[in-house]
Amino acid sequence: MYDLHGETVHFDTEHNRLLLLDQTKLPNETVVLSLNRLDEMVEAISVLRVRGAPAIGVAAAIGLAVLSNESTAQTPAAFQAEFRNNAAVLEKARPTAVNLSWAVTEMCKVQKLYEGKPISAQKAALTARALELHAEDIAVCRKIGEYGAALLQNCDAVLTHCNAGRLATVKYGTALAPVYVAKEQGHTIKVFADETRPLLQGARLTAYELSAAGVEVTVLCDNMASYAMQKGLVQAVLVGCDRVAHNGDTANKIGTSGVAILAKHYGIPFYVCAPFSTIDLRTPTGEEIPIEQRDGEELRSLWYESPKIPQNAKTINPAFDVTDHSLITAFITEKGVLQPADFSNL
Amino acid sequence: MYDLHGETVHFDTEHNRLLLLDQTKLPNETVVLSLNRLDEMVEAISVLRVRGAPAIGVAAAIGLAVLSNESTAQTPAAFQAEFRNNAAVLEKARPTAVNLSWAVTEMCKVQKLYEGKPISAQKAALTARALELHAEDIAVCRKIGEYGAALLQNCDAVLTHCNAGRLATVKYGTALAPVYVAKEQGHTIKVFADETRPLLQGARLTAYELSAAGVEVTVLCDNMASYAMQKGLVQAVLVGCDRVAHNGDTANKIGTSGVAILAKHYGIPFYVCAPFSTIDLRTPTGEEIPIEQRDGEELRSLWYESPKIPQNAKTINPAFDVTDHSLITAFITEKGVLQPADFSNL
Repeated sequence: MYDLHGETVHFDTEHNRLLLLDQTKLPNETVVLSLNRLDEMVEAISVLRVRGAPAIGVAAAIGLAVLSNESTAQTPAAFQAEFRNNAAVLEKARPTAVNLSWAVTEMCKVQKLYEGKPISAQKAALTARALELHAEDIAVCRKIGEYGAALLQNCDAVLTHCNAGRLATVKYGTALAPVYVAKEQGHTIKVFADETRPLLQGARLTAYELSAAGVEVTVLCDNMASYAMQKGLVQAVLVGCDRVAHNGDTANKIGTSGVAILAKHYGIPFYVCAPFSTIDLRTPTGEEIPIEQRDGEELRSLWYESPKIPQNAKTINPAFDVTDHSLITAFITEKGVLQPADFSNL
Repeated sequence: MYDLHGETVHFDTEHNRLLLLDQTKLPNETVVLSLNRLDEMVEAISVLRVRGAPAIGVAAAIGLAVLSNESTAQTPAAFQAEFRNNAAVLEKARPTAVNLSWAVTEMCKVQKLYEGKPISAQKAALTARALELHAEDIAVCRKIGEYGAALLQNCDAVLTHCNAGRLATVKYGTALAPVYVAKEQGHTIKVFADETRPLLQGARLTAYELSAAGVEVTVLCDNMASYAMQKGLVQAVLVGCDRVAHNGDTANKIGTSGVAILAKHYGIPFYVCAPFSTIDLRTPTGEEIPIEQRDGEELRSLWYESPKIPQNAKTINPAFDVTDHSLITAFITEKGVLQPADFSNL
């Protein structure tokens, strides 16, 4: 077994490999992948072996560094062409999260800076930047946790949707970072985890990582969130996100907008926890965020012994939805607790 | 195979049997159950072989008639004691739907009327009343369909939650009756069916019966309802219900209250379709409706090859929730399209 050093995504610089915890195998098996080929990396991102916007971004950055180090190009021009192709292919592996595109762009900036320089210098600079993005992700999530914990001092329990925990980032998580930091500070917050159909990230991943960390977690079907709020079982909602538009409209796992509408109805604060890099100032509103449509087989049979939907029934399978900014109480980022009006000033 | 005559619940008076389509086997197998024992009937109701508030009511009435006909009691007093025990046991098989209790009460009224009369007369009267309740259910659902179809003349597609179709009643359904009647009238309405975790009644049953009837049906995960409304895919919501309190608060399959909150947010009408017998004037508000709590194993493993929730994570599994009357556009009953203020006047 490869050593992840307690992380979800790790750069094994000694062997030049991208190490990933294969999240499709959780909670029943712990499998670590060791990758150094473009096709493997694209597959891992697109079938959600690595998932969670920040983790995908860091994985792509490390992936690009690994691929660069593997390059046998003989001229800076050939190296650059190969690098740009890798970057373009990786960036397309999933469309909705901005962090993937952001991280690839960060790596492209470094390569651009070294354009024409010796290949060895380019490789070293790309490796250094990937390691930096990896370290920054840990620091940023820690900060989100501190800001969030301060907001939750009177909370007994929170609801979360999908998995925006440790498994969705390198280490602390975004939506769950406040829960982990609060625990370190001696305040235990219980978590209600929507199971999050169709891929059950809440049931499989959020429940797995919180149980492992000794945090009490209760799994409920997505359609039970209204009941949980109506009965006063939770006092806040914490979610991560894949992209925030300039006006605050937020794309996150399908179902998030519904949870936000319920929270508003019941008067419960709804917090979006995200690295500032998730805020995409080039996207004015949620209307412009592309929503990934996935295969209906994920609904029909993926997790079942036998298909549970008749073959002649249709399906829809949007992977994300957009939560209107009016439903979001605040954005918890490493730069503080923000409103959309703050986005351009930071 | 026993002949259900195109119904979900049938009284085979020739062999004195309660015939039921076993809905836990759908959509992959069509199994008809032929029952004449109390324990079998209780099991069929409690594990949802027969489900849907109206169907449960009719099944219990037929069940009581079948059990009465099987009785070997020698005196009216012994017969009555046996009948009352059967009635009490059946009534407790599921707690939330009022139709079960209502149908059992109807049968008890008949028995009370014949108290002390010859056992053969009591058996005949109970059989006649069960057949009457069965026929009434068909007529009532047909009426609901007519009132509903009139409301949906400008609808291209509706959203429904759980299964309140043909399979939930003897024949037409409640929430789906307007769709079937509109189709007969030459107006085709498409249906978006929430899959309805944890037992997937939407994916398995609503999709099955609509596909079989040639109605276009699209299955979506429960958490995709907000997306479907946001994108304008549906113009109305139709649901059935298990009990309506005097003030209009409505208990129905878990998740219904969430759908109602979403519909209100998006400005989409939310109709509750129900036989008038579902309106329980003795229950003032939703607060007093008991909510059945089911085994968490239904979330953890029932439909899965392997458990998807870690063993040390907790679960909740309420089978129903209560939708506040303020979220309901109207009640579509066989007596017309009603508001709670109309309930006492009919």
